[in-house]
Amino acid sequence: MEKTTRSTEELRASFKERLGLLKAYEHAISALNYDSETAMPKRGAEGYARTMGVISGEHYRLSTEDGFFNIVMELDGRRDELDDITRREVEVLKKDLVRMRRIPPKEYAEAMELTAAASALWREAKAKNDFPSFAPYIERIVEMKKRFAGLTDPDAEPYNALLDEYEEGLTTQKLDGFFSAVREELKDLILEIAPMNPPLESSPFVKPFPIAGQRRLTDYILDVMQIDRDCLTVGEVEHPFTGGVSKYDVRLTTHYYECEVLSNVFSIVHEGGHSLYELNTADELLGSPLGTGASMSLHESQSRFMENMIARSRAFASILYPKMKEIFPAEMAGVSEEELFRHANRSEPSLIRVEADELTYPMHIMVRYELEKALIAGDIKARELSGEWNAMMKKFLGVDVPSDSKGVLQDMHWAGGMIGYFPSYALGSAYAAQMYREMEKDVDIEGAILSKNISPINDWLRERVWKHGLLKRPDEIVRLGCGGEFEPKAYTGYLIKKYRRIYGI
Amino acid sequence: MEKTTRSTEELRASFKERLGLLKAYEHAISALNYDSETAMPKRGAEGYARTMGVISGEHYRLSTEDGFFNIVMELDGRRDELDDITRREVEVLKKDLVRMRRIPPKEYAEAMELTAAASALWREAKAKNDFPSFAPYIERIVEMKKRFAGLTDPDAEPYNALLDEYEEGLTTQKLDGFFSAVREELKDLILEIAPMNPPLESSPFVKPFPIAGQRRLTDYILDVMQIDRDCLTVGEVEHPFTGGVSKYDVRLTTHYYECEVLSNVFSIVHEGGHSLYELNTADELLGSPLGTGASMSLHESQSRFMENMIARSRAFASILYPKMKEIFPAEMAGVSEEELFRHANRSEPSLIRVEADELTYPMHIMVRYELEKALIAGDIKARELSGEWNAMMKKFLGVDVPSDSKGVLQDMHWAGGMIGYFPSYALGSAYAAQMYREMEKDVDIEGAILSKNISPINDWLRERVWKHGLLKRPDEIVRLGCGGEFEPKAYTGYLIKKYRRIYGI
Repeated sequence: MEKTTRSTEELRASFKERLGLLKAYEHAISALNYDSETAMPKRGAEGYARTMGVISGEHYRLSTEDGFFNIVMELDGRRDELDDITRREVEVLKKDLVRMRRIPPKEYAEAMELTAAASALWREAKAKNDFPSFAPYIERIVEMKKRFAGLTDPDAEPYNALLDEYEEGLTTQKLDGFFSAVREELKDLILEIAPMNPPLESSPFVKPFPIAGQRRLTDYILDVMQIDRDCLTVGEVEHPFTGGVSKYDVRLTTHYYECEVLSNVFSIVHEGGHSLYELNTADELLGSPLGTGASMSLHESQSRFMENMIARSRAFASILYPKMKEIFPAEMAGVSEEELFRHANRSEPSLIRVEADELTYPMHIMVRYELEKALIAGDIKARELSGEWNAMMKKFLGVDVPSDSKGVLQDMHWAGGMIGYFPSYALGSAYAAQMYREMEKDVDIEGAILSKNISPINDWLRERVWKHGLLKRPDEIVRLGCGGEFEPKAYTGYLIKKYRRIYGI
Repeated sequence: MEKTTRSTEELRASFKERLGLLKAYEHAISALNYDSETAMPKRGAEGYARTMGVISGEHYRLSTEDGFFNIVMELDGRRDELDDITRREVEVLKKDLVRMRRIPPKEYAEAMELTAAASALWREAKAKNDFPSFAPYIERIVEMKKRFAGLTDPDAEPYNALLDEYEEGLTTQKLDGFFSAVREELKDLILEIAPMNPPLESSPFVKPFPIAGQRRLTDYILDVMQIDRDCLTVGEVEHPFTGGVSKYDVRLTTHYYECEVLSNVFSIVHEGGHSLYELNTADELLGSPLGTGASMSLHESQSRFMENMIARSRAFASILYPKMKEIFPAEMAGVSEEELFRHANRSEPSLIRVEADELTYPMHIMVRYELEKALIAGDIKARELSGEWNAMMKKFLGVDVPSDSKGVLQDMHWAGGMIGYFPSYALGSAYAAQMYREMEKDVDIEGAILSKNISPINDWLRERVWKHGLLKRPDEIVRLGCGGEFEPKAYTGYLIKKYRRIYGI
C-alpha cells in the first residue's frame, strides 16, 4: 500500500542510501580480509573468522531483505525515469538479488559451512597428498552447485548458469570453441618447444637478488606503469592479489622470493594491470557498485595484457635491463638484455598452474574446464578426477603428475565452491591478445614502452575498457576492447607467432 | 509486558548474543583503524572516514537501542542470579549506557562533527602556528564537555565527571594531591639537573643505525619480554600505539628513526607493556568486553613499568648492550655500557611531551591538568591558554616556548574532545613506581632481567593486574598492584632517588 505512494525520487534516495550502507560493509570486509593477509598474527584466525561471519552476514541481510528488494523491483518498473547509472545499478542488483533470493537461507548457510569445511580439509588433503579423503566433499559441492544453478537459473544448462556468475553471458558454446582452438593449435608447439630449453639452473636469474633491491625495482615498475602511489599501496603476502575499495584506495600485493627476481617483476606488473583498471574507473562511478571491473575475465584481460603483452615484450626488456643493472650491478654483471628477454619468455610444460608460462597456461585451464564441465554434467564422478587429470596432463602437456598434491589438489577453487571460475583466467589472456591486435591500429605500442611513457597505451585502455566499470555489460566492453566479436584465433595466432619466433621454429 | 515473561537464562542469552555482535563491530572498527594507520594510501582517507562513520554509527545504534538497554536493566535487577563475569559485564554496560542515553542523539552527532572539524583545524593551526584561529573551537568543545558532564553525571563536579570516563572513580581531590607532590618535590631537581648534561650531539647514539638492524633489535626485545609472536605482530606507523581485538590478536606498532636507535627501543618496550596486559587477560574473559585493560591509567602503568622500571634499569642496559654490539659492531665500536645506560636516562627539560624523559614527563602533564581543570571551572578562557601555558613551562621546566606549535598546540587530545585524559599518563607512571616497590618484596627484579628470564616479573603482574581485565574495578586493581592505597610519594621518591644517583647529586 505504502509502496505505490512513493515517488521515484524517494525510491531513488532510499536505494542510494542502502547502496552507501552496503559499500561501508564491503569496505569493512575488504579491510578485515586485507588485514588477515598482511598483518594478522597466526592465532588471530579464529576471531577473524567469527567477525567475518557476523559482518558478512549483516551485509547479506541488508542486501537481500524484502524492503530493499521491493525498492529495486519498483525502480526496475520505472526504468525510463532513471539516469543511466541508476538504471544500470538497478539492473545489476536485480539480477543478483533475484538469484540470491531463490536460494533458501538455510541452504545458503549450509553451503557456506560446506565450503568452509571443504577448504579446511583441502588444505590438509593437499599437505598429505590424500585425494580420496577430499573427493566426497567435491561430490557434495558439485551437488550443491547443481541444485543452486537449478534454483537461480532454472532455464539454463547448469554449467552455463555457473559460468554466468563470473561473466555475464558466458556459455559452454563460446568456451568449447575457444578451448578446442587452444588444444588443437597449441599442443604441438608446446611439445615441440619442451625439449629446447637450457637447464633452468644455468639461468643467471636463478640466484639471490637482495630483496631491498627488488623493492626498489617494484617502485620503478609502478612508475613506468603510471600508477599513482597516493591511491595505491604495496603489501607483502603469501599469495599476491589486488584488493581495494575505490579508485582512491587500491591495494596491490606481492611476494618477494630472493632467488626469483623475475617472479616479483611479473607479479607486480600483473597486479598492476588489475590495479590500473580499478584506478581508472570513471569518477562518476565513485561509491557506486558499478565502480569496479566489469567481470572476472575482463579484469584478468587487463592484468595479462600488462604482464604478457607489455612486460614480456622486447621493448620492456630494453627498459628493465638498465634499471636492473643499476640496482643489481654485481648480480647482473655479464648478463645480456637478450638473456633477460629469453628468461622472461621461457616456455616449458610444468605441473603447477600458477607457475605456468604464457604459452602453456591456457592448457592448464583447458584441463580444469573440461573436468568441471564433465562433473556438472554427471559424466564423471569426483573420485575419478585424479585419474582423468593425470591423463590429460600427460596428453596435452606431456608431463607425468607425481602426486595429487601437484595435480588435482593444487588449487583451492573447487573447495571454495568456485566452479565455473577457471575459464575466466584463460579467456582474459585471449581478450588481451585480441585487444593488443586492435590497439596496434592506433598506438605505437613498442615505441611507447621504449620511450618509458606508456600514456598512449593507458589512454586507449581507459577509453575502451577501464572507465566504463560495470556501467556497460561485459560483452559490450569485450567488443569495444577487441574491436568486434571475440576471435579465439587472435589469441592462438599471437602465441604461435611469438613463440615460433623466440624459439626459432 | 513481554519483558516480565523472559527467564534470566533467556535474557542472559540475548545479552551475550548482542555482546558478540558488538564485538564483531569493534573488531571491524579496529581493523579499519589499523589499516588506515599502516597501509591505506593517502587519498583513501575520505572513503575511510565515510565507512568509519557508518560502521561506528551502527555500533552506537546497536549499543544504545532500547531493546538491549532493557535487557541490561532487567539483568541488573537480577544481579544475584548472575555469574561473576555476567554481573560485572552488566554493571559496566549499565554505567556506560545510562550515561550515553542521557545525551540526545542530535547533540551527540553535533559533538562528533565538532570534534572532527576541530581535529582537522588543529592540524592546520599547528602547521601554521595559528592558535587564535583554533581557540574558539576549544571554547566550544569545553562548553560541549561541560554540558555532557552535566547530563551524564549531574551530581558530580563537571571535571570529575570527565575524569571518571577514563578512570572510574578518579577525582580532582586525588589528582590535586598527586600533582602538588610532582610540582613541589620534582621542580628543584629538574632545574638542578638541567645544565649538567653534555651536548646531545656528542652522544654516540645520535647517528645512523641501519633500520634493518633496528628491526632485529625489536625481535630481541620482544623475546626478552616473553611476548608470543603467534599472538602479536609489529606494524610501522607515524605515531606508535598498541591495538588489537583479543588476547590472541594484538598489534604493536613502532616508528624507526635511523638516527635515534633508542627511540625505537623504548617505544617497543612501552608498547610491549601495553601488549603484555592485553595478551595476559584471563582466558575466561575471551570475547567479553571485560577482556581488556581496566583503565587508561592502569594500561599506562604497565607500559611505563616496562619502559622505565625495566628497560631503563642498569640491568637491562647490561643485556641490551651486548646485543647492540652484535647487531651494530661498527656503530657501537668504542661505546661503553655505561654510556648506553646514561643516554637511556638522560634528563633535560624540553618542550614536547612525547619526547620528554622520565623525570620531566609528569611536569608536562601537570601543566595540562591545571589548565584543563581551570578551563572547565571557567577560571580561564580558551584564548588565554597560550599565555598560561608558556608561563607554566617557564616556571616549572625553565624553558621558553618559542611558538604555540611547540606549546599549547602540540597535542591533538583537546581537539578530539579528550578532556580529562592527560592525567592518566602521569598517574600510570606513578602506579608503576609504587608497583615496583611492592614487587621488590617478592621478586629479585634486577636478577630476573640480568638472567634474561623475566618470568617472575610477568607472573607477578599477571596475578595482580593483567589477568583481571575489567572484571575488577580499576581502584581494586590499583590496590592489588600497589599493595595498598596509592601514595604519590612512592613515585616522587623513586624519581628523586634514581636521578640523584645518576647525576651524582
